[in-house]
Amino acid sequence: MKILVIGASGRVGSDLVEQLLADNHQVVGTTRQDEILFNDDNYTQLDLDITAEKNAIQSQIADDIEAVYFVAGSGGKGVLEVDLHGAVKTMQAVEDKGIKRYIMLSTVFSLDTSKWDNPAIADLKDYYIAKHYADQWLVNNSTLDYTIVQAGALKERAGTGKIAINSTEAGENAIEDVAATLVAVLNADNTNKQVFNMQNGDTAISDAIAKL
Amino acid sequence: MKILVIGASGRVGSDLVEQLLADNHQVVGTTRQDEILFNDDNYTQLDLDITAEKNAIQSQIADDIEAVYFVAGSGGKGVLEVDLHGAVKTMQAVEDKGIKRYIMLSTVFSLDTSKWDNPAIADLKDYYIAKHYADQWLVNNSTLDYTIVQAGALKERAGTGKIAINSTEAGENAIEDVAATLVAVLNADNTNKQVFNMQNGDTAISDAIAKL
Repeated sequence: MKILVIGASGRVGSDLVEQLLADNHQVVGTTRQDEILFNDDNYTQLDLDITAEKNAIQSQIADDIEAVYFVAGSGGKGVLEVDLHGAVKTMQAVEDKGIKRYIMLSTVFSLDTSKWDNPAIADLKDYYIAKHYADQWLVNNSTLDYTIVQAGALKERAGTGKIAINSTEAGENAIEDVAATLVAVLNADNTNKQVFNMQNGDTAISDAIAKL
Repeated sequence: MKILVIGASGRVGSDLVEQLLADNHQVVGTTRQDEILFNDDNYTQLDLDITAEKNAIQSQIADDIEAVYFVAGSGGKGVLEVDLHGAVKTMQAVEDKGIKRYIMLSTVFSLDTSKWDNPAIADLKDYYIAKHYADQWLVNNSTLDYTIVQAGALKERAGTGKIAINSTEAGENAIEDVAATLVAVLNADNTNKQVFNMQNGDTAISDAIAKL
């Protein structure tokens, strides 16, 4: 497939692109950085500014893109411009182009405000509000075939290939496993219009996704 | 009527409460300030924290409230917590209580992102994004009988009682006229589910509202 990865230079984004390329997908990665991030014949790169107008974003997305990942993040600076409005504009642009598949990397309990008194979340309140309304838009205001993958704290450690899904408490994630989970949902039709949270666990990723 | 004014100590809020009291309405004003803002038998006051959970907000709203104004504003600090998420939680609380009428003070072109390259708006981008998604929620995700009044720059000058509605360029507003316009839409059924912008103009407020 030809896949657009919005946020290809991020911690999850770079792992995700590597895994998609390993699966022989064609990947268009977006980044604000100048240097080419991956040296692979199946990789091309786009300087996509998601703070630009929606039509400017849309004009940069190729017609033959078949699926889109949103794995960009403001890192706390520009949550309104990037994590909320930037994300929604990409949804609108993708939808207006007739592309159906949209996979969003979000954060655990983004849609469950009753969990937001957790101190770890309370410290990230603005980020959570931004992700909340972006995810709400995807669920309630778009016609996209979305999947929202809500990961907990991202850790730079080796993946295990095993996760737990829809835990009631937030947990940690190896970044490699988050990327592998994002790859696993791509063609899993049972994940269309689904939202789930994930963390390190005991179930092989493919089994966990199949049970959704 | 018994009316809840969220943000009673603000520049528009205080004028609005005065005008509603002058019309013999019962007014419950919310503010984070301790002192009682208005000395009137028809006025009571509530210390409503809209950064609290939605259920906490809801429990503070009396059952016999018949209409709600949202005229609170973060003033640029806490746009996500106040102007976006705080506002949406009040919509959800009001809706869950079965109150139908909800009047939102918003900002000119909050829903028309094609106007956002105007320098005056570009300087307020975060505020605009927050108001945009709050207004979007009201229009697309609530069942409230809303009216969204989008005022341009608020000026501390005497009102004229005359306005222009739905201009294609942003303009200034005497605060007193914004408050009078908010009062005028209260029982104007033709303003249900309507969004309009306003500025100083040549048409008497009641005539301008009647033509909507």
